[in-house]
Amino acid sequence: MERPTLLISRTKVERNIGRMLKKTKQSNTIFRPHFKTHQSVEVGELFRKRGINKITVSSVSMAELFAGHSWDDITIAFPVNLREIDKINKLSEKISLNLLTDSAYSTNQLDQSLKTKTGLFIEIDNGYHRSGLLPEQIEEIDAIVSICEKSEFLEFKGFLTHAGNTYSAKGKAEIMTIMEDAKAKLIKLKQKYLKRFPEIIISYGDTPSCSLADSFNVFDEVRPGNFVYYDVMQYHIGSCSHHDIAVAVACPVVSVYPHRNELVIYGGAVHLSKEYIAVDNNFKFYGYVVELTKNGWTEPIQGAYVSSLSQEHGIVKMPEEFITRFKPGDILGILPIHSCLTADLMKDCSVII
Amino acid sequence: MERPTLLISRTKVERNIGRMLKKTKQSNTIFRPHFKTHQSVEVGELFRKRGINKITVSSVSMAELFAGHSWDDITIAFPVNLREIDKINKLSEKISLNLLTDSAYSTNQLDQSLKTKTGLFIEIDNGYHRSGLLPEQIEEIDAIVSICEKSEFLEFKGFLTHAGNTYSAKGKAEIMTIMEDAKAKLIKLKQKYLKRFPEIIISYGDTPSCSLADSFNVFDEVRPGNFVYYDVMQYHIGSCSHHDIAVAVACPVVSVYPHRNELVIYGGAVHLSKEYIAVDNNFKFYGYVVELTKNGWTEPIQGAYVSSLSQEHGIVKMPEEFITRFKPGDILGILPIHSCLTADLMKDCSVII
Repeated sequence: MERPTLLISRTKVERNIGRMLKKTKQSNTIFRPHFKTHQSVEVGELFRKRGINKITVSSVSMAELFAGHSWDDITIAFPVNLREIDKINKLSEKISLNLLTDSAYSTNQLDQSLKTKTGLFIEIDNGYHRSGLLPEQIEEIDAIVSICEKSEFLEFKGFLTHAGNTYSAKGKAEIMTIMEDAKAKLIKLKQKYLKRFPEIIISYGDTPSCSLADSFNVFDEVRPGNFVYYDVMQYHIGSCSHHDIAVAVACPVVSVYPHRNELVIYGGAVHLSKEYIAVDNNFKFYGYVVELTKNGWTEPIQGAYVSSLSQEHGIVKMPEEFITRFKPGDILGILPIHSCLTADLMKDCSVII
Repeated sequence: MERPTLLISRTKVERNIGRMLKKTKQSNTIFRPHFKTHQSVEVGELFRKRGINKITVSSVSMAELFAGHSWDDITIAFPVNLREIDKINKLSEKISLNLLTDSAYSTNQLDQSLKTKTGLFIEIDNGYHRSGLLPEQIEEIDAIVSICEKSEFLEFKGFLTHAGNTYSAKGKAEIMTIMEDAKAKLIKLKQKYLKRFPEIIISYGDTPSCSLADSFNVFDEVRPGNFVYYDVMQYHIGSCSHHDIAVAVACPVVSVYPHRNELVIYGGAVHLSKEYIAVDNNFKFYGYVVELTKNGWTEPIQGAYVSSLSQEHGIVKMPEEFITRFKPGDILGILPIHSCLTADLMKDCSVII
């Protein structure tokens, strides 16, 4: 181990997949995991061997990556990027592809430029206010549906939402309220159009509520992604225990400063990302600290955390009794705040252990 | 332009290089620009053609990259990572390489494992408290110097500091005070050891003070890096005007929401990084917004900013009068908060215009 390296625990990944898969089976819900978190062909295979064959991605290039590795049923859960229409057409010839729209304008553009049958979901804004149409924007929804109805290539697939507002919810009750609210909104829309489109489904995603829900009944499909690795943010939300966090960045110690209870690791913003958790205005941290073991890592070292990041440097604060254990050349593990961003940064330097 | 793409303005880069170079020449100071910001072989050539032949990097892998493109005098301005000793030995055989230490322990380890002459700077902590020895840790400094004195391969080069505390300083006066303070500390150390090591130098870096200083007298070497591109953070610090910002990320518009004065771009945390500027506790932003022109981009659109980022989505807020100008498929430019992190993320998708 020479440089910052993402360690991916196979045992934990398989357990996280197994737990979510079991719940989707019990709920008779399609499990279409989001692959944007891991973006890894190898981790993808851990899903495939459990029988999963439908996936979600968040860009055309990710769809190309996985289509190139025999994934043939992919939803790009991102408002369609009209600039990539040529690549979309190529993909759609080869695999079963679903796109997202939230405007009649984009849908019209798509209709005019698609060359082969392509699925289309209408993205609904459940209150997160990132992308999607509000459920009450019925006129725009009607317009989109009508374009699909007349289109040679667009196949209306149903309604999809990402309840990203669960990330800032406080506790299970609030998260479940968001999920129930989204469910009610999507069902109402489905029922409205079901006669005209008997095959449409409702598709729901986000790790906090999918982790905490006892079942997914009514949702036809769920698309959580982060759960495969989890991270410190999910631990703080309450979606997982720290034992479920399946990735750690192994970072060489380069300097130790006992007089300030700090050490510096080779592991900075270009490895971990600048995502942080703010406990209050005066206390932010960028990761928990673990020791590596033969097959994985320990529990987080109590009172230790990444207090600051610059491009390549990470500053780790540690209680006095721990700091003297380490010297330059040792390796520490960092549990990332947001594994999606860390895994993206560490794409070229990761290993399944 | 299909996907988020880093546009690098050749005119602005050349102007930024020229301005800094002129000042170093007038001060008779070695100019050893930090290449961690751009990490680009092509941008490196824009330095080379101005006669610059000494560079700074922040990792062994960056040193390998540039050594592979005929840069033969490189300082790795990062506490030496003992885990990469084999790569360091290979580099040091080929080029004139300088390393950094801030402990007798690391220096001893280096001494025992180096196989060829290698320069060594002692990093001094000027008050930034990231890495380096405090100037008053004379015992440790003495120990390092003594190891070098007896070493077959270690050549003591002098004292180096990075005044990263200028990034949180308020205004030119405060920044200049930090620079003067660092200067005094480094000179004192140089004078202490000059008799034993007549060739030692003092090396100083950071973009805010190097941009604002009228001259670099007394410093033997300066190592600013960010100035090549600048960014919104430097603009806020006062190191540059927004005309000097030499990079913009071109991002496709994918959704427009006139009812909330927002639009969504394909351009998220994996393109821009999660670096932000917090104006107060309730207002953070992740980039300014510009329109692209034939040869570059406009001034920032007044009142427009990136208000939120997720992995691939960026939310742009814009006054009512602007929002209706845009539709899905258009391209917007985003001036990044921290160009070092953005350029790192966009390494594989950038173009000099």
